[in-house]
Amino acid sequence: MKIGVFDSGLGGLSIAQAIMARLPDHDYLYLGDTKRVPYGNRSQETIHEFVGEALDYLFANDCLLVILACNTASAESLRRSQQQYLPQKYPDRRVLGVLIPAVEAALEIAEEGRIGVLATASTVDSGSYPREISSRSPNASSVCVAAPLLVPLVECDGLKYAGPILDDYLANLGRVDALILGCTHYGFLKDEIRSMIDCPVVCPDEVVPNKLADYLNRHPEIESRLSKGASRTYRVTDLAPGYAALASRLAGSPIPLEAVSL
Amino acid sequence: MKIGVFDSGLGGLSIAQAIMARLPDHDYLYLGDTKRVPYGNRSQETIHEFVGEALDYLFANDCLLVILACNTASAESLRRSQQQYLPQKYPDRRVLGVLIPAVEAALEIAEEGRIGVLATASTVDSGSYPREISSRSPNASSVCVAAPLLVPLVECDGLKYAGPILDDYLANLGRVDALILGCTHYGFLKDEIRSMIDCPVVCPDEVVPNKLADYLNRHPEIESRLSKGASRTYRVTDLAPGYAALASRLAGSPIPLEAVSL
Repeated sequence: MKIGVFDSGLGGLSIAQAIMARLPDHDYLYLGDTKRVPYGNRSQETIHEFVGEALDYLFANDCLLVILACNTASAESLRRSQQQYLPQKYPDRRVLGVLIPAVEAALEIAEEGRIGVLATASTVDSGSYPREISSRSPNASSVCVAAPLLVPLVECDGLKYAGPILDDYLANLGRVDALILGCTHYGFLKDEIRSMIDCPVVCPDEVVPNKLADYLNRHPEIESRLSKGASRTYRVTDLAPGYAALASRLAGSPIPLEAVSL
Repeated sequence: MKIGVFDSGLGGLSIAQAIMARLPDHDYLYLGDTKRVPYGNRSQETIHEFVGEALDYLFANDCLLVILACNTASAESLRRSQQQYLPQKYPDRRVLGVLIPAVEAALEIAEEGRIGVLATASTVDSGSYPREISSRSPNASSVCVAAPLLVPLVECDGLKYAGPILDDYLANLGRVDALILGCTHYGFLKDEIRSMIDCPVVCPDEVVPNKLADYLNRHPEIESRLSKGASRTYRVTDLAPGYAALASRLAGSPIPLEAVSL
């Protein structure tokens, strides 16, 4: 069976590529919900509905384990999916997010410090980062800043305009001991952000692959059921004219996209 | 019966408010598809599907006439809706767009000139503006530039960052004799754009209300069936935490939003 990687759009390709580089032998199915991207400003109920439809699709297409590569989806829906949706409907399948690996990595840097998070509006509203940080390290504090313009800058070829916008978002954080880039897309700005801020920066695509490898080592009952044909399939819910080029640009190599309906 | 105003999100409130100011006695139902906004980067098939669902909803809720206040929807779906969907399914209803009023206004300024259009990627890809311009004035020429970052700047409180982005988009147009703001949202940047470009600027919210009034004068069989209770109802397909404040900011006055499913 396959590893599924789900994102609201194409930004999750950065995490998918990083996972595939770390665990190259597995079979992968990437799904991007480009028909309804972005999720970052939608309500919790809507995000949960969309994630449920994506999980149905991925499980129906032979995925044993799904990575929610979208922070918004992880923040809003991971716990509900793990605690309610999967036990009822798919007891033998697994879903993992990108939020907890990032929190763990930030706490390794600043266990009792002040942790900053840049994320989408709905991830910030969910309160997931402060909750996960304080539950692991009661003496750590956190500050979350919504950075809603960064996703469009990445998706619409606007990285060159990011400077003054990042200046303002980073100023809103104040002094922090570690910064989590709490949205898959922000990884495409990580070099610029690192040059602008004087603390370690945690980027999901740099921590999720090792955390997934650890997970599979600790769960041989999952690992043994994953097939090793090194296949990669990339599917999107809407294939607009510019998407193939955007996908290849974000992934750094040509990506063959197929359109599907959920 | 009511006048329906449809937009992919909340940007169409600018046109809705302008129409209501021009024709204050009519009853209005505004629908914003906030669950799936923005439309500007989606495929033609997907946009047509979404517009069809919105028309079904508005016609089922007593709208006789629907204004597609979204340029992307007008560009991709107006003609198909008028020529195929309505005749088959709703022969006594009407749907009007915002694209042709803007084209007519630009040609009144520069009948044989070079007309610039700023629009979303999918509106540009549709080829609708060049087609409508050249079919009305064979000696006019046109140049369309995709301006994908402007919608997020408006929706995510980023107007102060618009300067250098607009500089680049306007430079891509070259010299033009009139400029059409080919997306509802761009009206929120019209003062800044007018200060940056040396030609008349056509903004849909300034031309659509009079064109609609003309249409109703010419079509008494429609006008006579419209009720005059001066009611306004505003519905959205997803009511995320920030939407009520955004709607009020865009409309310039408090807007009571209700959530509905299509």
